[in-house]
Amino acid sequence: MRVEDLILVSVDDHVVEPPNMFDNHVPDKWRDQAPKSVKKPEGHDVWVFEGNEIPNIGLNAVAGRPPEDYDMNVTSYDQIRRGTYDIHERVRDMNVNGVLGSMCFPSFPQFCGQLFSRAADKELGYVMLQAYNDWHIDEWCGSYPGRFIPLALPPIWDPELMAKEVKRVADKGCRTITFSEDPSKLGWPSLHSEHWDPFYKACVDNDMTIALHIGSSSSILQLDDAPVDVMITLTPMNLFQTAANLIWSPALKRFPDIQFALSEGGIGWLPYFLERIDYVYERHRFWTMQDFGSDLPSQRARKNFTFCFIDDKAGIQNRHMIGIDNITWECDYPHSDSTWPTAPEAVMKHFELVPDITDEEINKITYQNAMRAFHYDPFSVIPKEQCTVEALRAQATDVTTSGIE
Amino acid sequence: MRVEDLILVSVDDHVVEPPNMFDNHVPDKWRDQAPKSVKKPEGHDVWVFEGNEIPNIGLNAVAGRPPEDYDMNVTSYDQIRRGTYDIHERVRDMNVNGVLGSMCFPSFPQFCGQLFSRAADKELGYVMLQAYNDWHIDEWCGSYPGRFIPLALPPIWDPELMAKEVKRVADKGCRTITFSEDPSKLGWPSLHSEHWDPFYKACVDNDMTIALHIGSSSSILQLDDAPVDVMITLTPMNLFQTAANLIWSPALKRFPDIQFALSEGGIGWLPYFLERIDYVYERHRFWTMQDFGSDLPSQRARKNFTFCFIDDKAGIQNRHMIGIDNITWECDYPHSDSTWPTAPEAVMKHFELVPDITDEEINKITYQNAMRAFHYDPFSVIPKEQCTVEALRAQATDVTTSGIE
Repeated sequence: MRVEDLILVSVDDHVVEPPNMFDNHVPDKWRDQAPKSVKKPEGHDVWVFEGNEIPNIGLNAVAGRPPEDYDMNVTSYDQIRRGTYDIHERVRDMNVNGVLGSMCFPSFPQFCGQLFSRAADKELGYVMLQAYNDWHIDEWCGSYPGRFIPLALPPIWDPELMAKEVKRVADKGCRTITFSEDPSKLGWPSLHSEHWDPFYKACVDNDMTIALHIGSSSSILQLDDAPVDVMITLTPMNLFQTAANLIWSPALKRFPDIQFALSEGGIGWLPYFLERIDYVYERHRFWTMQDFGSDLPSQRARKNFTFCFIDDKAGIQNRHMIGIDNITWECDYPHSDSTWPTAPEAVMKHFELVPDITDEEINKITYQNAMRAFHYDPFSVIPKEQCTVEALRAQATDVTTSGIE
Repeated sequence: MRVEDLILVSVDDHVVEPPNMFDNHVPDKWRDQAPKSVKKPEGHDVWVFEGNEIPNIGLNAVAGRPPEDYDMNVTSYDQIRRGTYDIHERVRDMNVNGVLGSMCFPSFPQFCGQLFSRAADKELGYVMLQAYNDWHIDEWCGSYPGRFIPLALPPIWDPELMAKEVKRVADKGCRTITFSEDPSKLGWPSLHSEHWDPFYKACVDNDMTIALHIGSSSSILQLDDAPVDVMITLTPMNLFQTAANLIWSPALKRFPDIQFALSEGGIGWLPYFLERIDYVYERHRFWTMQDFGSDLPSQRARKNFTFCFIDDKAGIQNRHMIGIDNITWECDYPHSDSTWPTAPEAVMKHFELVPDITDEEINKITYQNAMRAFHYDPFSVIPKEQCTVEALRAQATDVTTSGIE
């Protein structure tokens, strides 16, 4: 397959929320209490909610910069590409990168809406979380039908309310919702608790996939005095832990059709993980009392999970040990791990290293698995021949690719 | 290669210390204060040191039991095979299992001698730690020249004393010493501290390899309410973290020849790990200020580390992504992950799954890498033709293989 013929759906990108995002989605009664974007005297942009300042609007939104110019904290809109927060520019940035579809995780509210869960006034928190979801689904994703996979945030402080929100956004056509890779780190019951059953049940009942992003527990595997390189190296291991917790949790047994997506966790560790869970099961289940019926744990993992990668040659080489139907691709725009605007070439390098890979396998990895896992159907809106890298790049004229415009 | 022709050196087994271990190794002045093995009225055997009882003499020393009979806590000598604590029976158990050489980690003092580090009287702690090392080197390993790789414990509470002990045991022919996978979890400075430099320097000066066993931080990756299956699944990830910490630590830069062995950490995660550390380095080093000179981090990992596996088909399949010179084998006798007494057949199954593996590669994995990494030379004592699985099993007559004798 030529790189120009790839169809790319990225299941993990990031939106830096624009200052006006709440303008059209908050009932009049609550309008004054919506989070506000404020420019500080020293030039920093911050969000203010319930009197608290939220710095760092965009994590490391460094797309377009050379690695020599990376840093981890972006503090103002004028430091970053407009495509990070402007939907029209975003689509231009997707086009120049040959990317058809994108699922965008939040920035300032954190990956599972931790910001709203910390609201002193929980009713206010829920109003703003709903406004966020409405903005994301209707305005951000809705502006360009077929180009985005909508992703909702859950009111994590109340599982019954989570179930209600699942139903509400599902009725609007959203089929993916975030959750925490480890809610116990946020002060809630752990993944081993039945506390989350109402949420899980609503997700199963509404064909809603649960996306667990690294960092969604607001904690990381890192010693206090370790250099940041350790943190970057270890981030995928947070999701190794999440996968282990979920595999052995009652959730998978009580909800056999539940669907989880592990976001930004990589895939190269999965051959080992899948072998290990079967080994643990076969060797220890007699005294640990685990029972997967006629399945092996690895079969449940392949049934209930999808995984994604950015740069992961070990994973693609071992794709059959993982499961060719379980691998999706991500661009991670605009963060520092992203290969924008040469993502097609970067992903193609993986495939070129395994000469026996078929076009059918490549298509599953680059878009078909994502379509299935996230209930995403771009071809009902956009003719398929206009969805390739080549066709999208042909639309991208006059797009500069520098980091700061 | 036939299974009978394998030569097997296990770099991770365990000794359950026999009740009389301190009899010949404690100076008269301290004899009364040596740890004592005590039989409790209810039948449990415990060690008593400084008035404190240490239960669980042998962790899960279940060798010989069928999986249906496993449990995690062994409480008396009459529940376990004599080979766990009797050196003569141990060698018979090695013979029936076709294992030439074995490195035995401690049981009741914990993996890096935590017990002695907790002594209220540190002078007493050091006397008993030296007695332990003398017993281990001279009596346990010394009884059967060529059959064991001696392994010392460090007085972890004092890096200068550690250096002194390194020199002392090196002079006795011991070339491996344990340390903690994460000393900060034990209340000491972390792997990123220069605190450990005297110890590291002594190890380098004396060609001493540092063995880091899972559990040597007395802590595990486990949520409070998670089932034990999660803990068993995640144990190797403790050493993924250790490897990440060491790779980015100043230790590797200050001591370019230092040698670490990661014990019971598996190998299947290494293709991902090695790719990941190079990715982090190439993408982030400009702002994280890491500098490996002309090397990549993966090259340093291959220069400074060895790894080992029990049951790890993904690892053997990807052996060239790991490094054929970095893989060693372990039996884990007498713990529940051990495949005793059919370890040769279990390891051979790995090789049969990769038909392109050469005898040269197999020999590196099963014994030659261990000989190099741990400065172990059995063939100077035992003719090589007597070291094969076939030759050793021929010596093992009348060995029963039940779990409890």
